[in-house]
Amino acid sequence: MKAVVSIIMGSTSDLPILRKAADFLEEMQVPFEMNALSAHRTPHEVEEFATGAAERGIKVIIAAAGMAAALPGVIAALTTLPVIGLPIDSTLHGQDALLSIVQMPPGIPVATVGINAGLNAAILAVRMLAVSDESLAERYAVYCASLSKKIVKANADLAAINDYKFKV
Amino acid sequence: MKAVVSIIMGSTSDLPILRKAADFLEEMQVPFEMNALSAHRTPHEVEEFATGAAERGIKVIIAAAGMAAALPGVIAALTTLPVIGLPIDSTLHGQDALLSIVQMPPGIPVATVGINAGLNAAILAVRMLAVSDESLAERYAVYCASLSKKIVKANADLAAINDYKFKV
Amino acid sequence: MKAVVSIIMGSTSDLPILRKAADFLEEMQVPFEMNALSAHRTPHEVEEFATGAAERGIKVIIAAAGMAAALPGVIAALTTLPVIGLPIDSTLHGQDALLSIVQMPPGIPVATVGINAGLNAAILAVRMLAVSDESLAERYAVYCASLSKKIVKANADLAAINDYKFKV
Amino acid sequence: MKAVVSIIMGSTSDLPILRKAADFLEEMQVPFEMNALSAHRTPHEVEEFATGAAERGIKVIIAAAGMAAALPGVIAALTTLPVIGLPIDSTLHGQDALLSIVQMPPGIPVATVGINAGLNAAILAVRMLAVSDESLAERYAVYCASLSKKIVKANADLAAINDYKFKV
Amino acid sequence: MKAVVSIIMGSTSDLPILRKAADFLEEMQVPFEMNALSAHRTPHEVEEFATGAAERGIKVIIAAAGMAAALPGVIAALTTLPVIGLPIDSTLHGQDALLSIVQMPPGIPVATVGINAGLNAAILAVRMLAVSDESLAERYAVYCASLSKKIVKANADLAAINDYKFKV
Amino acid sequence: MKAVVSIIMGSTSDLPILRKAADFLEEMQVPFEMNALSAHRTPHEVEEFATGAAERGIKVIIAAAGMAAALPGVIAALTTLPVIGLPIDSTLHGQDALLSIVQMPPGIPVATVGINAGLNAAILAVRMLAVSDESLAERYAVYCASLSKKIVKANADLAAINDYKFKV
Amino acid sequence: MKAVVSIIMGSTSDLPILRKAADFLEEMQVPFEMNALSAHRTPHEVEEFATGAAERGIKVIIAAAGMAAALPGVIAALTTLPVIGLPIDSTLHGQDALLSIVQMPPGIPVATVGINAGLNAAILAVRMLAVSDESLAERYAVYCASLSKKIVKANADLAAINDYKFKV
Amino acid sequence: MKAVVSIIMGSTSDLPILRKAADFLEEMQVPFEMNALSAHRTPHEVEEFATGAAERGIKVIIAAAGMAAALPGVIAALTTLPVIGLPIDSTLHGQDALLSIVQMPPGIPVATVGINAGLNAAILAVRMLAVSDESLAERYAVYCASLSKKIVKANADLAAINDYKFKV
Repeated sequence: MKAVVSIIMGSTSDLPILRKAADFLEEMQVPFEMNALSAHRTPHEVEEFATGAAERGIKVIIAAAGMAAALPGVIAALTTLPVIGLPIDSTLHGQDALLSIVQMPPGIPVATVGINAGLNAAILAVRMLAVSDESLAERYAVYCASLSKKIVKANADLAAINDYKFKV
Repeated sequence: MKAVVSIIMGSTSDLPILRKAADFLEEMQVPFEMNALSAHRTPHEVEEFATGAAERGIKVIIAAAGMAAALPGVIAALTTLPVIGLPIDSTLHGQDALLSIVQMPPGIPVATVGINAGLNAAILAVRMLAVSDESLAERYAVYCASLSKKIVKANADLAAINDYKFKV
Repeated sequence: MKAVVSIIMGSTSDLPILRKAADFLEEMQVPFEMNALSAHRTPHEVEEFATGAAERGIKVIIAAAGMAAALPGVIAALTTLPVIGLPIDSTLHGQDALLSIVQMPPGIPVATVGINAGLNAAILAVRMLAVSDESLAERYAVYCASLSKKIVKANADLAAINDYKFKV
Repeated sequence: MKAVVSIIMGSTSDLPILRKAADFLEEMQVPFEMNALSAHRTPHEVEEFATGAAERGIKVIIAAAGMAAALPGVIAALTTLPVIGLPIDSTLHGQDALLSIVQMPPGIPVATVGINAGLNAAILAVRMLAVSDESLAERYAVYCASLSKKIVKANADLAAINDYKFKV
Repeated sequence: MKAVVSIIMGSTSDLPILRKAADFLEEMQVPFEMNALSAHRTPHEVEEFATGAAERGIKVIIAAAGMAAALPGVIAALTTLPVIGLPIDSTLHGQDALLSIVQMPPGIPVATVGINAGLNAAILAVRMLAVSDESLAERYAVYCASLSKKIVKANADLAAINDYKFKV
Repeated sequence: MKAVVSIIMGSTSDLPILRKAADFLEEMQVPFEMNALSAHRTPHEVEEFATGAAERGIKVIIAAAGMAAALPGVIAALTTLPVIGLPIDSTLHGQDALLSIVQMPPGIPVATVGINAGLNAAILAVRMLAVSDESLAERYAVYCASLSKKIVKANADLAAINDYKFKV
Repeated sequence: MKAVVSIIMGSTSDLPILRKAADFLEEMQVPFEMNALSAHRTPHEVEEFATGAAERGIKVIIAAAGMAAALPGVIAALTTLPVIGLPIDSTLHGQDALLSIVQMPPGIPVATVGINAGLNAAILAVRMLAVSDESLAERYAVYCASLSKKIVKANADLAAINDYKFKV
Repeated sequence: MKAVVSIIMGSTSDLPILRKAADFLEEMQVPFEMNALSAHRTPHEVEEFATGAAERGIKVIIAAAGMAAALPGVIAALTTLPVIGLPIDSTLHGQDALLSIVQMPPGIPVATVGINAGLNAAILAVRMLAVSDESLAERYAVYCASLSKKIVKANADLAAINDYKFKV
């Protein structure tokens, strides 16, 4: 099956954070691909990738980068697809990456998620795709229901193991 | 025509920034609605709005808020639609709003754009919708082409009026 | 005995910090309960909890959360009880949580304490309750006296063990 | 009537922000007093004030200060009453005042509200008092209801005046 | 004469700050050109510009940009010439631009100057060029001498007009 | 009379803030001098000044500077006199100047006062000198007494003009 | 011998940083004392200490504190002696302590040194005392000379061990 | 061969970061020297070094420093050579060093690279030198080509080892 989400990382050292994105896309049965490309070190590959993405069938791009994280913005400038920017904490707690990704100039938005938020980047991609894919919307709804069940259960466990609760 | 984008602002004082979003959606012929709702002051209306949005035909939500900007995240928690968060600068240069919107917990992403970036919020909504709407994709492509033409022209004007260029 | 303080945490991983709150409430003989609820993952449970808290006899709520910490504000919006917000350091040293909790819009205050300050959250709750509970006020006064004695003693110990003091 | 809330400001230049607090307390019919005292310039008056407050019938203290805002913490150290700290923006956008007030050491909490949030300081005081004052609780509930009505009305006005809403 | 310094600005609104750079280059008789190009809005023009700069005789590039300022880094990635990055204060006091420009990944440095420091960008270019251009080095040395004379004179004036100096 | 305090400013534009320092020194009858010197633009004058200061009878140096404020530290490195560093807000709200002045390496301290705190710089100088000058100590004690009287009077005025106080 | 420097720490956990101060004072043969006192937990002891310090022969006070570090400012308000403030990094990298100490209101300066800069606090005290103590001034001059010798030697060692130096 | 690049570090503890600079210069066959000098502890050596550097044949200076990092600016003030400033992270994540280096006053620029970016400092030096050294330019071009090959290969490896890629 052809990939509809493309995950790009500025450095292969970002892989552990992007695995969370990949795992979720797999769970949601969303075909995806994953590549390492650098706005600064492989600009031509980035351009080739970004300008050809829509034609290849990609519908959403997730771009992760740290420091002066130009990758998400540069890709967003070369495609009309929605680009999800994922700031990676490599220095200054990721504040440099966050500002470098989110503060885009008028005309070229990047849909920025939290620092190191690999899972949320993938969930956001699924939300975008589910708008026009009912079957995916259903799978995602099941996931959402399980999410809140998990915390309700965690709470119940807390009540059980927690020697404070209702105790006094 | 039924709205497919819903713009929510935490306070009517955010209207000037959201007009840029509204103007762009209108230019792109995307039906939208615009409301003021507060996660903190009208929580029930927010819940009613968010849980019913998808059913009413809304496909993307733009939520703007300042300070401890809970609105985008709260809406994202109550819908499976993609939610675009727009931090408004009301104090601390919008850094409080930015962090309150972008740093969402795992499971509930908000697609955050830059501080006061009303236009970019709308463009991001269009990018999301254009993935499954070819006619919109075409209108947006025309806009993109005009955007880069504008800066190329600005550059030409700069050359003309600028007594420095190629001068020495 | 029915709980008068309700401790809410956004995630069970916040438990170690909240234990300090629980221990102090127990020491002060203030009946309390402790639950995990998430503004983003279990919004309906949060609403049910917050709107029913006063009726159930709760007088003060302590709400702890990290990152885009919407929980304290959302609860404060759904109750007229005083809500103590406790920012948890999960990223950015807790600065995101602090700003997300303290910078509330006009109309819905959250009584914010320091980052990870579990003990102080509980002491603040006791101060609020002691205003109309003389017996609790007395127990708390005893604690305060012991607190300053402890540091006076620490100082005496310092004098004893410290080979610098009055030495030269 | 004897004051139950005492508003202290570090400098009379903070008066405009504290008027919002005073106006709200007056609206809620909460007797209050208002003084200028400085932790740094009138330490003895601060001590006299703080140690005698409870005996004079004060139940909640609101302390506003800017810069290295020691006032709220110093008062909290000299009384067992709940102290609401109100950071004033005089430099660095109030970040210095916020951190100086909220980051209290274990044992002496200050209930911190947002930067320049005079109204919220007063509402928080009312929430604390209303816990043991049913008549005040009722007056405050009326206020809360009017608050959400105001934003619902603002939204209706927005619909009326806003040429975007439901328009396309 | 062919330009040896190329000034690039991300937006023509940066012109006032870059005029200071241009004026200094003119004073030093360094041929230069000035263009508006955007990493995000005119990526192809940026690439064409950057890859051809060295061949056209450009020896140093000054790239100014605000917000998520990708321009200097992107140009540095496409040329082997030294690139001077000039962060422009358009929001967040230029902190976003500063971090976006200076925190480059290993391999692609940008010589970053201070926020809005148009003059310093040009002086830095002159210092780079003067290393292999003795005539320019002499002109720059004259300028440096005049600079310190100016402040010595300012000090003398201060002595004259200042009623404090040596007065008591 | 020979100056015992030397006020140095990095730029004559800092004069308005240093006037407050000068006025206070004059009020305390402390002989002083005032000069403009720049660590970066007149390094030789700075060295000459700093190395000769003690011998000329200077006992305390106040050094004000903005941005990358090297002046106080450089002077402190060239003298054994106590150096008071005064950060000036010229950009980034003075945070750059504050950090550049206060974060000195081990061995060379600078006694840093608040951003733009011209008066406090002079008071600190007086405190240092008063330790070994009883007559000055007395004059300063008179000033201190007047200071707290002023705020006590301000409070009394507040009581008189303030229609809130003790009113309800 | 009677102490002339008094070192105060807000918590005995600050002892490791203050040892550096104590060691240096000892090396300089400056009699000192060392105590733990808290502006918030032992306010009366602080007042007693501060108001009596000058009379007991203390000439300079070093006050260390972390978080909402009120101690140095509160002491400075209760004495006319110069007070050196030493911010301790206990959270937020010491930024809260730094701002809480340095940003004092007009009238009450604190001579702030860098975060955790125990040695520099003591050196600053010595510089203040040496102004009127020639014998101390001589001992300190010897130390200064040794300091620069140390780095000159470090550099020589670097030349010896460093296989890069002058190598290519 | 005589050194053309001079690496200066404020402290020998910065050596590990500067080794990356030295290694790269060696790889590029650029003769260099390396010294430890402190703007604050060895000001005279710094002056001697900086004023004599150009005459000794130095063409570019790399100056690394942490905290209140005055070294790069002070050197830039004493030479007309281009000075590359390298902020070292010793506290506050290097934010103090970054601001102390980059925010230079008008007239004395420092070419600042990222925090701890030893390699980039050296690459920037090479870019400056290569402008007038064709042979170096060629060696550097070879390096640049290898850089992007490395990431292209990393990407290929990612494809091979990554069980996600093109998998679904």
